[in-house]
Amino acid sequence: MNKNRLEAFSDGVLAIVITIMVLELRVPAEPSWHALLSVFPTFLSYLLSFVYVGIYWNNHHHMIHLADRVNGRILWANLHLLFWISLFPFSTRWMDESGFAEVPVLAYGFNLLCAAVAYYVLQQSLIRRQGRQGALAQAIGRDWKGKTSPLIYVAGLGLCFLHPLLAVAAYTVVAMIWLVPDRRVEHFVTRAHEDRSG
Amino acid sequence: MNKNRLEAFSDGVLAIVITIMVLELRVPAEPSWHALLSVFPTFLSYLLSFVYVGIYWNNHHHMIHLADRVNGRILWANLHLLFWISLFPFSTRWMDESGFAEVPVLAYGFNLLCAAVAYYVLQQSLIRRQGRQGALAQAIGRDWKGKTSPLIYVAGLGLCFLHPLLAVAAYTVVAMIWLVPDRRVEHFVTRAHEDRSG
Amino acid sequence: MNKNRLEAFSDGVLAIVITIMVLELRVPAEPSWHALLSVFPTFLSYLLSFVYVGIYWNNHHHMIHLADRVNGRILWANLHLLFWISLFPFSTRWMDESGFAEVPVLAYGFNLLCAAVAYYVLQQSLIRRQGRQGALAQAIGRDWKGKTSPLIYVAGLGLCFLHPLLAVAAYTVVAMIWLVPDRRVEHFVTRAHEDRSG
Amino acid sequence: MNKNRLEAFSDGVLAIVITIMVLELRVPAEPSWHALLSVFPTFLSYLLSFVYVGIYWNNHHHMIHLADRVNGRILWANLHLLFWISLFPFSTRWMDESGFAEVPVLAYGFNLLCAAVAYYVLQQSLIRRQGRQGALAQAIGRDWKGKTSPLIYVAGLGLCFLHPLLAVAAYTVVAMIWLVPDRRVEHFVTRAHEDRSG
Repeated sequence: MNKNRLEAFSDGVLAIVITIMVLELRVPAEPSWHALLSVFPTFLSYLLSFVYVGIYWNNHHHMIHLADRVNGRILWANLHLLFWISLFPFSTRWMDESGFAEVPVLAYGFNLLCAAVAYYVLQQSLIRRQGRQGALAQAIGRDWKGKTSPLIYVAGLGLCFLHPLLAVAAYTVVAMIWLVPDRRVEHFVTRAHEDRSG
Repeated sequence: MNKNRLEAFSDGVLAIVITIMVLELRVPAEPSWHALLSVFPTFLSYLLSFVYVGIYWNNHHHMIHLADRVNGRILWANLHLLFWISLFPFSTRWMDESGFAEVPVLAYGFNLLCAAVAYYVLQQSLIRRQGRQGALAQAIGRDWKGKTSPLIYVAGLGLCFLHPLLAVAAYTVVAMIWLVPDRRVEHFVTRAHEDRSG
Repeated sequence: MNKNRLEAFSDGVLAIVITIMVLELRVPAEPSWHALLSVFPTFLSYLLSFVYVGIYWNNHHHMIHLADRVNGRILWANLHLLFWISLFPFSTRWMDESGFAEVPVLAYGFNLLCAAVAYYVLQQSLIRRQGRQGALAQAIGRDWKGKTSPLIYVAGLGLCFLHPLLAVAAYTVVAMIWLVPDRRVEHFVTRAHEDRSG
Repeated sequence: MNKNRLEAFSDGVLAIVITIMVLELRVPAEPSWHALLSVFPTFLSYLLSFVYVGIYWNNHHHMIHLADRVNGRILWANLHLLFWISLFPFSTRWMDESGFAEVPVLAYGFNLLCAAVAYYVLQQSLIRRQGRQGALAQAIGRDWKGKTSPLIYVAGLGLCFLHPLLAVAAYTVVAMIWLVPDRRVEHFVTRAHEDRSG
């Protein structure tokens, strides 16, 4: 069973999630700078969710590239990940409509946490199939980003009881960690690719 | 006529159906746990439909993989299947908005039944084109899942007159049956793939 | 310039158009058979537009398969076709919301006519690039369907002034004409494919 | 790291953006010619945004075709471009709902400007990776279109203070400049393709 359709389907879902979020963006009530400014927090929450979907697409791209084949378990682990990502527009909208109130910000963070766990489960399924000596296991290495992120999410959930914006700050920190390019993985991807080509 | 675009188009439609359902999810009216809890049934119906689209994508993936070529009849049998699946967001929304009332739950089950019949028709068209000795016919074998599912749907439609939630339970049972991995088919897919590659 | 991305982009747009139309479907106001019956005309107009997009995808699939390469002119002729098809959800919705009133039914027919003309323009661009002796020109032959359809649309537009449902009948007749498989084209597609493969 | 998934994901996002804009189109309030005429400006703004997405898809298609490989920086430069394009439905809707008022027309132009800058950044990242002697750098040459467009956008933003429609005219001029086929680039694309094939 090859991985092309898994990639195509995931690309489709991620492309739709990242794009339909804009349908949720309410246009300013009046044609004024003031009204535009009032939707600025909405814009930022859209940007944060856009960046998160971008990060998942990027990492998914690298991870599947290094994998060999997929089986039924992996297809469902992938759908599980897509399920939590598909809820981003919903939790973003609630957080935004509530004006960053406590419960919706907690729900948004919980959604991010579930997606991170689902990503980890998918990654482990792929590694188990390929073996500990495979390209994926070696590229990921100790995976400090994957292990740190859930901890920061949980910290953010705790901070939310102090002030919801502290939680949003924690979620933004995780996004920043992933935005910084991970040279090690990319190096492995490039090498694995060259090994196959030549 | 090769099958790549059939796969690409089906992936596109299924990816959109699975993703736009989240647009239907109404955010809780207030930023409270109580309001979040009140949308929990909505969440469950979303999950059920998500799993159904996932099952169809999964099975479609395997089935087309084993098929050789497609013709005009098969393209339309495929569009027929996609038509019924594309109505899932509609019937999910109605069932959900009505609070799982009798008629919408019946309509949802009827939609599931039509999709199952359309899948069966597509499968038979593919088998007819490939022949009884083909990889697809052999992989499917006696197809007890495909034959049992419509019966459970019909039973669910009947149970709905007792209580709508009994029907929802029946629909969930069918999803469970398909979620359990079918080792036989996967075995065939793997073997057919290896036969071609080597 | 190869044609893969043209196919992928067109598949994407057509898959989205065919799927988002369901978002326009209003759920019945009450959970009753009576309310479900009242949305039946909506359902039929959705079905008609679904079949139309299916026909375009099917024909587009065949046509591009027989084409060799594409140039800038062809990319824009294709986008022109996609533009008119992308308006189907809009004109379907208006026709439906108005209860099949005269002006919206005319607008729907005009939309179908524009899509047919755009398809013809794309087809001619592809033939001009490949030459009169090319596989596409020969497969299409005298193209009686492509030439008859606009005439029936125009007749439908005229009949609309007698009664809108006569126009809808005319639009349905064109869909029927295309649904009937065109053995000649398929024969050519199969042959062209075999010539390339072996 | 190959470029197939970058193309697939970008195609997906652009196909969705170009298609969901139609969901924003409000159907005329009454089934009359008069009501249809009143949504004509809406139709034109939809057409303008459709053409813009078409231009970006077209240029993106050519640019990525000439590129060799992609890295993490390029993936993010591409996501940055997609972000601004994904906001087109939002800014189109606001401009349209306000009846082409000053601030929304400025916001629309600013969105176009950001997309143009993001495209330029992506192009430079691709050129840097491939080298000044690469196919892409040579095909683009002095890039007068890419350099003129931002100037016209800025001029449009200034003209908007005189009258918003002057700004819309400026945005339309830029679209026209790109719609006219650029023989030089296409020539290069064709040649590069032939060099690889044979």
